[in-house]
Parts: sequence; C-alpha cells; structure tokens
Amino acid sequence: MSEERSPAGAVASLEVKSTWTRRHVLDLDDFSRAEIEAVMETAGAMTEVLGREVPRVPALRGRTIVTLFYEASTRTRASFELAAKALGADVINIAASGSSVQKGESLYDTVRTLQAVGAQMLVMRHASSGAPYLVARHVEMNVINGGDGWHAHPTQGLLDIYTMRSHLGDLRGRRVVIVGDIAHSRVARSNIWGLTNLGADVVVCAPPTLLPFGMRPDGAPAEPLALPRVTVETDLDRAVEGADVVMALRLQLERMTAGLLPSLREYARLYQVNEERLARARPGALVMHPGPMNEGVEISPAVARSLQSTIEEQVTNGVAVRMAVLYLLARGKA
Amino acid sequence: MSEERSPAGAVASLEVKSTWTRRHVLDLDDFSRAEIEAVMETAGAMTEVLGREVPRVPALRGRTIVTLFYEASTRTRASFELAAKALGADVINIAASGSSVQKGESLYDTVRTLQAVGAQMLVMRHASSGAPYLVARHVEMNVINGGDGWHAHPTQGLLDIYTMRSHLGDLRGRRVVIVGDIAHSRVARSNIWGLTNLGADVVVCAPPTLLPFGMRPDGAPAEPLALPRVTVETDLDRAVEGADVVMALRLQLERMTAGLLPSLREYARLYQVNEERLARARPGALVMHPGPMNEGVEISPAVARSLQSTIEEQVTNGVAVRMAVLYLLARGKA
Amino acid sequence: MSEERSPAGAVASLEVKSTWTRRHVLDLDDFSRAEIEAVMETAGAMTEVLGREVPRVPALRGRTIVTLFYEASTRTRASFELAAKALGADVINIAASGSSVQKGESLYDTVRTLQAVGAQMLVMRHASSGAPYLVARHVEMNVINGGDGWHAHPTQGLLDIYTMRSHLGDLRGRRVVIVGDIAHSRVARSNIWGLTNLGADVVVCAPPTLLPFGMRPDGAPAEPLALPRVTVETDLDRAVEGADVVMALRLQLERMTAGLLPSLREYARLYQVNEERLARARPGALVMHPGPMNEGVEISPAVARSLQSTIEEQVTNGVAVRMAVLYLLARGKA
Repeated sequence: MSEERSPAGAVASLEVKSTWTRRHVLDLDDFSRAEIEAVMETAGAMTEVLGREVPRVPALRGRTIVTLFYEASTRTRASFELAAKALGADVINIAASGSSVQKGESLYDTVRTLQAVGAQMLVMRHASSGAPYLVARHVEMNVINGGDGWHAHPTQGLLDIYTMRSHLGDLRGRRVVIVGDIAHSRVARSNIWGLTNLGADVVVCAPPTLLPFGMRPDGAPAEPLALPRVTVETDLDRAVEGADVVMALRLQLERMTAGLLPSLREYARLYQVNEERLARARPGALVMHPGPMNEGVEISPAVARSLQSTIEEQVTNGVAVRMAVLYLLARGKA
Repeated sequence: MSEERSPAGAVASLEVKSTWTRRHVLDLDDFSRAEIEAVMETAGAMTEVLGREVPRVPALRGRTIVTLFYEASTRTRASFELAAKALGADVINIAASGSSVQKGESLYDTVRTLQAVGAQMLVMRHASSGAPYLVARHVEMNVINGGDGWHAHPTQGLLDIYTMRSHLGDLRGRRVVIVGDIAHSRVARSNIWGLTNLGADVVVCAPPTLLPFGMRPDGAPAEPLALPRVTVETDLDRAVEGADVVMALRLQLERMTAGLLPSLREYARLYQVNEERLARARPGALVMHPGPMNEGVEISPAVARSLQSTIEEQVTNGVAVRMAVLYLLARGKA
Repeated sequence: MSEERSPAGAVASLEVKSTWTRRHVLDLDDFSRAEIEAVMETAGAMTEVLGREVPRVPALRGRTIVTLFYEASTRTRASFELAAKALGADVINIAASGSSVQKGESLYDTVRTLQAVGAQMLVMRHASSGAPYLVARHVEMNVINGGDGWHAHPTQGLLDIYTMRSHLGDLRGRRVVIVGDIAHSRVARSNIWGLTNLGADVVVCAPPTLLPFGMRPDGAPAEPLALPRVTVETDLDRAVEGADVVMALRLQLERMTAGLLPSLREYARLYQVNEERLARARPGALVMHPGPMNEGVEISPAVARSLQSTIEEQVTNGVAVRMAVLYLLARGKA
C-alpha cells in the first residue's frame, strides 16, 4: 500500500499565503473575495489529495467533527463525513430522529453538550432559517451551516462556484441563470451572494409566485436579494439568452399543493431546462443542479445527462470544497 | 500494543494465485467454481487476520465503502461495516430512513451521488429483486448485493458454503437440506446456486404453498430453481434422512396473515428442525440458520444451541467472507 | 501535526497499580471502593490524554465496540463513541430503529450476533430494568450498562463522582442532595450506590409521589434504597441546608399526565433549584444535572449557567470516565 504524503505537501503549502481568521461558515453574504479565493485555492489542493492512490491526509487527526442533521440528507451529510475522514478527523453523526432531540431537548442544550463532549466542529442542518447563527453565538466550536431553512447553504454555493471556475476561469461578467423556486431556495441565496461578489451577473428566473416578495414584478425594491448584479426574469427563454451557466433548482412538489403553481406539467412547459432552451445559451454553457433532481420537471433527462451537465462534478467537488472549509477553519482556530 | 503486520503477509500472498476479474457480486448464479474457490481461500486468510491480537490490515486504506440499506438489518450491515474497517477502509452508512431517500430521490440519483462523492464500493440492500443489477449497470463502483427482495443474498451463500467446508471439506455429493419458506428466500436461492456448482446435492423442503411455483408438486418443470442437483421434498422427515447439513430458514410471520399457512403451530409440527428429526440425519450433521431465528417455530431451542449448530459460526465467518469479497473486488479493480 | 504519545505514558503507568478484574459495568451497587478509585485514577489519566494536541491513544486499536441503543440518546451515545475512538477502537452504532431489531429479533439473538460478528465490548441502553444483566449472562463481551429503565446508569454515577471529587476532594461526610423524580431515576440510583460507598451523606428530595415506595414518608422501611447514609426529605429548603452538592434530575413531562404531579408550575415552585434555595447550601456548593435540562422547571436558567454549575463539566468528564471504563475492562479481559 502506498504511504500517505505528509500534509507538508500540497495542503500545507497554503499555510504561508492564507490569512484565514473566520470561525464559522454560516452564509456567503459576509465572505470577502479573498476568503472565497482562499477556499478555492485550498479546494484545488484538496482535489489533488483526492486524486492520490490513498486520498487521505492526517491534517485534522485527533479532531472530532459532529454532523447534526435535523433534516434528512444523503449527499450533504455523506460529503461532509467523507471530507472529514479524508482529513483524518473522527466523525460523529447525529440525526434528529434517533437522538434525544426527540425528547424535546433544546438546540442550545444539544450543541453545548456536543461541545462539552469534545467536538471541535459542528456541521448542522436545520429547518429554521438562522438556527446556525444562534448556535454560533453560544459555542466555541466552529459552526458550518449545512443548510438552514430557505436561508443559506454556503458550502453548496462554494462548490458551485468552484465548479464554474474550473470550467470558466474568472467569473467576472459571466451570465449565470438560476431558474426555479427562488423564493424557497437556500441554494439560490448562497449562490447569489458568492457569485455577485466575484463579479458575475446573476439572472434569477421563476414564476412570480416562486420569487421572493421583493423580486416580484409588481413588488417593491427588495432586500436582501435586490443586489446590483442580480436581475429578475420570469421568461426562461429570455433569461437563458447568452448564458454561461444555467442552474436549475429542485422543485419541491409540495409547492403544488400549497397553490403556488397550477400543475407540474405547466411548470415544466414554462420553466424546464431542456435542449431547446439550452440552445439559446452560449455554446457549451454549463448546466448545473444542486440535486436531488426531479428529472422531467425542472430539468429534462437529456440535458441532465448531457456533456454540458456538471451535476456529478458538483458532488465530487463538494468533497474537496468541504475539506477546504474544514481545513481552513481548523487552522484558523489554532 | 502489537504492530499490525503488513498485508504482504497472509493476505498479500494470495495475489499471485488469484485471477479475479469480477467487478460486482450480485448473485452466485454466474460464479465459476474457481471464483468460489478464490473467495474461500481469501476468506481463510482473513480468518487468520481476525485471529490476530490486532485484527486489522490496511489493505483498503483510503477506500470509501458505502452501505446503503433500504431494509432494516443488524447483522448484515454490521458484518460488512466491520469487514471494511478491518481492512482499513472508511465506511459511510446510509439507511433509507433518515436520508433524503425519503424525499423521493431516485435510486439512480442516490447511487450516482454516492459514487460522485467518492465511494469506490457500494453494499446495498433493497426490497426489490434486481435493484442491485440496475445499479451495477450505471456505476463504476463495485456493487455488492446485501440482499434484494426474494432474489439473492450472495455473501450469505458464500459464508454458508465457507462454514460447511470448514467442517465437511469438499462438498461434492454432500446432502444439504434447506427447509422453510423457499419461495420467498433469497438465502435459499443463493445457496442453491453456490452449492450445486460445487457438486452438493440440495434438497429443498417446504409446504407446497411456500415453494416457488415451478417447484410445487403439481407445478410445471421450473426455472430457475429446477437445477440438476436440486430435489424437492414436502416431508421433512424424509428430506432429513442421511443429510450432512440441515439449514432452517426464518419464517416471516406475515406469511400467516397472507393465508399461506394455517398456523404457526401447524408449521412447527411439520417443519420445525428439532432433535427427533435431526436424529434421522447423519451423525454430527450441521444445523444452520441465516438468522434471526424464531426459536420454537422453524427450529427448536435445543437444536439451535446444540453442538451441531453452526449458527454463530456462520455470523463469525460472515466477516471473513465479506473481507474476502471486498478485498478481491478492490484488487480486481486496480 | 504532533505525534501521539505511546500509551506507555500516562495511561499505561496505571497498569502496575490496578488490579481490575471486573468484566461488566452494570451498576455501582457491587463496586468496591477500590474499583471506584481505579476508575477515578484512570479517568484522571484520560483527562490528561484529552488535553493533548492530538487527544488520542491507540490503547484499544483493533477492538470493536458496539453501541446498542433501544432508547434515543445524544449525549450518552456520543460520549461513548468518542471515548472509544479516542482509544483507537472501531465503533459500530446500532439504534433499535433502523435495525432488524424492529423485525422482532430477540435481545438474546441480537447480542449473540454482535458478539459473533467480532465485537469485544457492548454498550447498551434499554427501556427494561435488568436487560444488561440478562445479556451479560449470555455473552463473552464486556457489557456496559448505558442506562436500563429506572434501574441504573453506572457511568453517569461515576462521572458525577469524578466531577464532585475534582472540586471537593474526598467525599466522606459531604452532603449531596439529589432532588427530583427519584422514583423513576436510574441516575439517582447509581449515584446513591456510588456516593454512599465513598462515605458521602445523600439526601434525596422529592414530592412523595416521586419517591420510591419504600422511601415515602408513610412507607415501610425500604429496600434497596434505604441505605445507612441516605435520608429522605420532601422539603427542598430543608434538604439544601448546608449541602455541598445539589443535583437536580430531569422531570419527565409525562409524569404530569400520569397524575403524579398537579402541575409543572407547582412542581417548579416547590422543587426547582433556584438562586434563593441555593443560598441555603454551603457557599460555592456545586450544582449538577445529568441533562437534558428542562430549564425553568427543575432548575432555573440562572443557576444552570452560574459559576457553581458543573453541568457541562459533567459532560466533558463523561468522556474521560468512559475511556477509563473501556480501558479497564479491556485490560482486565486480556
């Protein structure tokens, strides 16, 4: 079996350059461009690590990372777990079901307990927007938001940006279309913050009922999403025109029963990313999706599996990006 | 603490002889005799590893193995998890409950995601017969069927064979009786394929309602179980006559409510493996059961805990056999 | 990254002194004072390990520890899991939901299977008092009771004692008040056994309906809790007078619906540990709680977060104490 290389290789060489001081990753709204760059660069080194015969470095050996998921997840939890293990950390998984969380233990109590047990880092997903902020105020652990309600999913934003940059390089002036249920999407929000920070032009596209109030055609000038580089478009054909990236969001099928959409068929007819529409984008435009997909609803199967699709690449990059985030937070703390 | 020995010991010495090329272990129906022998021999080396002071070898260090279980399991999941850890692999457990599988994510999406996350091997259990075949067609990962519906459970078959051979040596001409709910048993199917391949004579014994259609006394000549070396018997006393092995299957209690059986008491009277019946077998005949048992239904407590019982030995051997399968698949891939 | 020190350091130096022969930790009722001292001393060494840059020792490398929890838990399961990993052991977690335990597999079958799979140690929690005793009689594994019904929770008792001693030194003659639902509390029972053994004076305080029958004011002389050093008090103000330690127990809210209490408000008025009551204890008296807390019910928020509170310290000490227990059991077995 091949020997693992010392972290003094690709990973440790970053230590000189980076000046990371952030303690938590809660959203991208307060990330500086330099911080995003630090994640990108470190993720590049982690991609190199993951390509090795034995894709492991002991950079976080002896650290304990807890994943605390109040909502079900396959990809995000597995991605963080693998990222942590690839860095040599120990991982303790806690799902809300099957833990004493069911007994009505408060979030505060739970996280203070996990800290007292010896966890240095907490990756959490919660149905309530803002929950990780509340937690971060009361713990010494590094807190990483793995998705909070409709609010934010910063590592998803970072892995999407990493994926775009690996294909397109500098994102300044790039046209990124995000289509779907913007109103209820933490993925859209985190992407918007990160992408506009890097100079991309973001077009959000949705039926008016799935836009945040402030973005609706008849709405008032809006906060927090009415950013300089964000435009709103309710016609997907127009939105896609000249796009460098088209990112489709998962349509939660319960939006239908809530009366926000007339029918799946109608939604697919007007907002599905399919081959015909994609032809209006730049040649070779990237097709992205945070998963899991409803193929045939927000995205056609042909487009989802086309050469332009980066959907599985996003998942793969997610591990490198999460390794980078864990690594930078651990270093910053020391 | 004692130092772990390099895999260049017992395990690595196999590398010269074996010519393993199989990428997936889905059932035993297409296993060659040489492949079964390769598993047996490798499992022997793994048994030696498991007997060490520190029963670990780093043969799969840096590999990620996912267990994806859509049906509940204690022994099979724990057995694979321990086998993987004993080989130095990292294990990520995903249970259908508590994962986004609940959200209606497709099996295809789930396994492609797990692959994209970086898993090299997938151990899966699914209620639908054939599900692992579907998966194997769409992934680069090595897929191991940990049980699919009524269809197959190949590592159970291999560990049963390993257990029989450790007591009986060559299985040619040995009489192996499998008694119970043959119709709905993946364990029976995988054992039948493996055992007949090795030249054993298999007798399946069940009430007609629990036999596959093609095996019923009034049925047509049947596929796939009407193999040359398989005979059907509805009388357990006759079946056990001269047996070298008597394997009782778990009776799923829901068969009763489905009207396939008059009563548990009636079933036990006619099909329980008990001391009286076992006396008709060869002296020292092995008593096997894949677990979990309904003691007092398909097997009497006295027989289950007798010296002839290999029931716990089967569980122990399961770890060595699964280590062997993981090891051979990992090597074949490199 | 810093190198981990050999276990021949702080931990191994204990090997000379200790004469541990116990195979299971089921309750503290049969612990000798010397055994409690051995846990305390070993836990002290483990606290030192946990303070290192890389808080890991390979003392249990190659050992497999199973946590089998039939009741939900965050802190206890995570604490044992981290303790085991800090000692280099592999951990397999089994929750009753999501395992074949749901299928009606017997406890006997389950634990025999886990043993056959290769587990050397079993940490179990079960709703039935006495379940771990039953298990211990039928396995070679070391069994650790992680809580059985209302009966016992010995590692909680040990970590509470460890926490008291780290502040108070020798516990002889110390006044320890345990207030709350004594009748249904495994924490109270294990603490009473351990504390009285070490010479502490224990005062249990509860409304009569939450006292065990034998302790009720109108009750008969009682077993097993009518120990020489235990007194019963139904008035908290009197109980707290001169106390060195005040331990509040979690009030299970279902006691209300069972008619054992008039109302939460009434309970809090009479039995809440608050600042006013705490003023009657010795200056600097410790406030303890096994968690999770109902703040505002059995304990006031101000007291829970005061400098006198050791509640998070208890959790932290729990890891060291569980490391000690795992370590001593593993050594005793060799």
